[in-house]
Amino acid sequence: MAILKRPRNLKAEDNTGFGSGATSTGGRFVNRDGGANVIKKGVSILYRYSWYHTMLGMKRSKFLLLLFLIYIGINLVFAGIYYLIGINHLAGVKAGSPLKNFTEVFFFSAQTFTTVGYGRISPVGFAASAVSTFEAFLGLLSFAIATGLFYGRFSRPRAFLKFSDNALIAPYKEATALMFRLAPYKNNSLSEVEVKLTLGITSEENGKLTDKFYDLELEYPKINALALSWTIVHPINEKSPLYGFSKEDIANTDIEILVFVKGFDEVFSNSVMTRTSYISPEIVWGAKFKMMYHPSDDKNKTILEVDKLNEFNRVDIPFFVKTEPE
Amino acid sequence: MAILKRPRNLKAEDNTGFGSGATSTGGRFVNRDGGANVIKKGVSILYRYSWYHTMLGMKRSKFLLLLFLIYIGINLVFAGIYYLIGINHLAGVKAGSPLKNFTEVFFFSAQTFTTVGYGRISPVGFAASAVSTFEAFLGLLSFAIATGLFYGRFSRPRAFLKFSDNALIAPYKEATALMFRLAPYKNNSLSEVEVKLTLGITSEENGKLTDKFYDLELEYPKINALALSWTIVHPINEKSPLYGFSKEDIANTDIEILVFVKGFDEVFSNSVMTRTSYISPEIVWGAKFKMMYHPSDDKNKTILEVDKLNEFNRVDIPFFVKTEPE
Amino acid sequence: MAILKRPRNLKAEDNTGFGSGATSTGGRFVNRDGGANVIKKGVSILYRYSWYHTMLGMKRSKFLLLLFLIYIGINLVFAGIYYLIGINHLAGVKAGSPLKNFTEVFFFSAQTFTTVGYGRISPVGFAASAVSTFEAFLGLLSFAIATGLFYGRFSRPRAFLKFSDNALIAPYKEATALMFRLAPYKNNSLSEVEVKLTLGITSEENGKLTDKFYDLELEYPKINALALSWTIVHPINEKSPLYGFSKEDIANTDIEILVFVKGFDEVFSNSVMTRTSYISPEIVWGAKFKMMYHPSDDKNKTILEVDKLNEFNRVDIPFFVKTEPE
Amino acid sequence: MAILKRPRNLKAEDNTGFGSGATSTGGRFVNRDGGANVIKKGVSILYRYSWYHTMLGMKRSKFLLLLFLIYIGINLVFAGIYYLIGINHLAGVKAGSPLKNFTEVFFFSAQTFTTVGYGRISPVGFAASAVSTFEAFLGLLSFAIATGLFYGRFSRPRAFLKFSDNALIAPYKEATALMFRLAPYKNNSLSEVEVKLTLGITSEENGKLTDKFYDLELEYPKINALALSWTIVHPINEKSPLYGFSKEDIANTDIEILVFVKGFDEVFSNSVMTRTSYISPEIVWGAKFKMMYHPSDDKNKTILEVDKLNEFNRVDIPFFVKTEPE
Repeated sequence: MAILKRPRNLKAEDNTGFGSGATSTGGRFVNRDGGANVIKKGVSILYRYSWYHTMLGMKRSKFLLLLFLIYIGINLVFAGIYYLIGINHLAGVKAGSPLKNFTEVFFFSAQTFTTVGYGRISPVGFAASAVSTFEAFLGLLSFAIATGLFYGRFSRPRAFLKFSDNALIAPYKEATALMFRLAPYKNNSLSEVEVKLTLGITSEENGKLTDKFYDLELEYPKINALALSWTIVHPINEKSPLYGFSKEDIANTDIEILVFVKGFDEVFSNSVMTRTSYISPEIVWGAKFKMMYHPSDDKNKTILEVDKLNEFNRVDIPFFVKTEPE
Repeated sequence: MAILKRPRNLKAEDNTGFGSGATSTGGRFVNRDGGANVIKKGVSILYRYSWYHTMLGMKRSKFLLLLFLIYIGINLVFAGIYYLIGINHLAGVKAGSPLKNFTEVFFFSAQTFTTVGYGRISPVGFAASAVSTFEAFLGLLSFAIATGLFYGRFSRPRAFLKFSDNALIAPYKEATALMFRLAPYKNNSLSEVEVKLTLGITSEENGKLTDKFYDLELEYPKINALALSWTIVHPINEKSPLYGFSKEDIANTDIEILVFVKGFDEVFSNSVMTRTSYISPEIVWGAKFKMMYHPSDDKNKTILEVDKLNEFNRVDIPFFVKTEPE
Repeated sequence: MAILKRPRNLKAEDNTGFGSGATSTGGRFVNRDGGANVIKKGVSILYRYSWYHTMLGMKRSKFLLLLFLIYIGINLVFAGIYYLIGINHLAGVKAGSPLKNFTEVFFFSAQTFTTVGYGRISPVGFAASAVSTFEAFLGLLSFAIATGLFYGRFSRPRAFLKFSDNALIAPYKEATALMFRLAPYKNNSLSEVEVKLTLGITSEENGKLTDKFYDLELEYPKINALALSWTIVHPINEKSPLYGFSKEDIANTDIEILVFVKGFDEVFSNSVMTRTSYISPEIVWGAKFKMMYHPSDDKNKTILEVDKLNEFNRVDIPFFVKTEPE
Repeated sequence: MAILKRPRNLKAEDNTGFGSGATSTGGRFVNRDGGANVIKKGVSILYRYSWYHTMLGMKRSKFLLLLFLIYIGINLVFAGIYYLIGINHLAGVKAGSPLKNFTEVFFFSAQTFTTVGYGRISPVGFAASAVSTFEAFLGLLSFAIATGLFYGRFSRPRAFLKFSDNALIAPYKEATALMFRLAPYKNNSLSEVEVKLTLGITSEENGKLTDKFYDLELEYPKINALALSWTIVHPINEKSPLYGFSKEDIANTDIEILVFVKGFDEVFSNSVMTRTSYISPEIVWGAKFKMMYHPSDDKNKTILEVDKLNEFNRVDIPFFVKTEPE
């Protein structure tokens, strides 16, 4: 992407954690889903993942499938062990072909692991008894772990917020403003919601590409309760690093607006946070969001139309400060 | 409701999250139980609910009934599958009429799902064994989820506070004050309790109905420990948006006092919060709360009479500032 | 207790939550174990207790006994039901005297409730099967609840701090100071520990007994890490409400020093708090704590002697400001 | 270690919790793994450990082994009880030598404790039935506790940060600076990360060894998001207690730099904290860290090389303020 524009001489922030100065990062800083766009190397695969964080972040279907595969896998291993010990150590087995025998011990293993223990098949020799003693223990611990994982997954505080796909630049008071909005879409409720906006911009300085970060001042950085949608407004006035940027400047500059939202979930009584970012192609020049809530027909409730989150009208920006007071 | 009165030219707050400006909301902002009076539309029913928030907020009896119905439902499904596989795959079934057979497989299913596994009936063929292997797995996971839900429900931090039904306006120092009170009614204990009051008022401006919000200053917005009842006092002095309101003004204006309480539960070591609101008909002019605690007979303890929370005496308001210094 | 002394004209605090003004409380405000000395009345017994708070606060032995009694109780109820249904609905029962029969169904009930399900006894009729289906379900839910209670109990953040039995008054800099100390006694570790001290004093004013509260300034109200013992020091200088109190004044006045400690447990990553209080008879005039830690013999570790927490030496207080600059 | 140097007359901090003044501590204050270097004495062994903290802090392999040993131990105890009651109370036992009998009752015990209950062996007499009723109850409670422990272990918020082995002193702006760095090495993500640095220094004062603590000012004490590695920089300027220290001064003085890091884990929505410290031999004079991240080949991601955390280049320190403006 061409690099056209630098902000005027404002103090850049060095505490974003993304490394300012000569560019040594690649691509956008934050993905749209809020994750940092970073790959870690040089850590053994054994240490690279917190398996608990991994299990918590996994999609539900994948998580359930994984649990099932582990269950099948463990039973296959124990079935193998019982088979090696010999089916004559298991009373009640209906012996037959080797495959038939293996399925019998497999089901016996499953009945032990889940502690169902019908008892049609039961261990009689020392070896089979000892293994099944261990397997039942392992089974209970496995389900103890699964219980923890389930609880961890669904009690994990999440913000359940949708962000508008675009950030808009619209006329605002006597200049313009950058705006985007967010809306809660589930039956949770957040209070004391704060937003922090940081502009990341890559510009040329002394012939080298340099990343700089700037805090963007908001009209209201905090609201008491997130009952309806919330439009976050950054006025592009003389204190803004975007002051003096034209439509083309924004389109052609390597800009990223990092969004950080923090709130308090009233049901979980816990803080939640979420991130996103907007890059140049996601910023629309000359547009204004449509209203997305209105009173109900009986005037007794307010209706929030979450599917209108991305709807905006085109507007003209008749006046724009072009002079750069540098 | 008739709209009679507007506050004097005080700065309105725009960060309540309820959307100020031209009215586009309906009814009260916050319900008496603290929930926002908003309906969300335009979200698929699959995404509209956080099922975990729903399960946590459900009444206890409904929650237990739901678990039981799910248990019966799952067993009916598995009973159907075993029945289709054929009861000859289940050793020990006392065969009889189709209904008798179905109840037998239903109870076998329940014995598998709960991992009781008496073993009088036990699977012998591959199909029945495989299904029961899966059912026992599903059973344990279901109880893992139930465990998480139970824990989530009873460990959920709640404030356990009762609010007085009415807010009162009483003489206070050299003017009047708006008061309401709250009391803890369970054996939990809160510290560092904060209250925030916001006045929402709908008035006419340039021919349009407009919502405005004002912070109400409190005499003591925070207390160290909520050991007894607490009367929250907003002095109606010159800085108050309610300054100059007569009894009739309050009765006829579309007023809502939003109450937000936050504290720290010392047993759970977690923050708890709760909300409520008072609208015009819930505000009583000329009344003062009765004392609700007194020393015990042996003078060694303090008695808090929670059932006196709503008791007040009528008082005259002899003097009231009528001049509006606008 | 005789009321001898009032503090000089300092601003009293009204935000303690213990109700200042004309006395309407009895006994000490806070018990030594930190609980508020208040009884709640006028709430139905069904609503008065948060059963979860109760189960969490219960002594371990009592809690385990309660669980066992519930287990026996539930099994007695189900045994009664099976007995009424008739033991002929249970295959495998070794019938005998009514008592013998009852113990058989009791043990069958226990085997069902715990989902052991040996199967020597197993339900055959519809009624017994249906009841056992429900009992196994109830059993699993009960153990789900027990799991939650156990986790709730041992994951509950607690400060694990011991407070010295006495607060001491000792010479300090050019005046005196009130001191007490606390020490961690377990293998947890707290950081960012804060202490807040409030003096509650009952004095006569216009012929009425009045409770007043005063914040006590501390030399260091916060420490970074609670690695060793910590002596909290309130200098009794001109800004202190205790300034000008003699030994007799302190002994004869109805004084209570409310202590509130808050910290961050590094293992649980959670805030913990604890309270205590010192009343007049627990304040020792003219005493200084003995050192309670020293280097190990090899100089490589520090030894904290927790059992020396209460040890102090008598000291003279040669100089004490008697003039009251009121 | 020889004590050569004292900082100039800066105000020492007394709120570290490590006890300032005449030395009465031994060795380093904080171990490299962050634990305080303190041993507690004078507490009964029953009260000295929070068993839950212990179980949570234990290594995984040790924890699992301990659970297994407890499982075996409990079964040995119950096997002993059943053996004493007599194997004729257990139907289905294949009697033989005493050892054979004991293994039979041991496996029966395991089948009861885990609630597998195959039923080949089942209790018939009152005594054996009663014991097995209790054992199944105990088994379920034990697994309830194990579930809680597992969840407690893996949901415990941890920072997952690696610190560089050394702190470096390098030229920085017009003087020098002390630097060390940290990097996240797992797939968790921290925001609002704060670092606090305290210098502990043991120097001679009036002939006595005295511990003093000084806050070290940081260039950026807080970053918004810990996406990449973070180099913490303490400029050694006139406000620094290390100002005027030569290479030899640092090597020969009893210095310890206490590091305290706090952040917010976005997955767990919980605060995490960690500690470490650097002592004199771990401080390298004249060295600068190598860059440890760079763009990926396709410029679309950033690569963080965690194994380069400790890599540095030697640099000269040509200029150093030697004058002590005391």
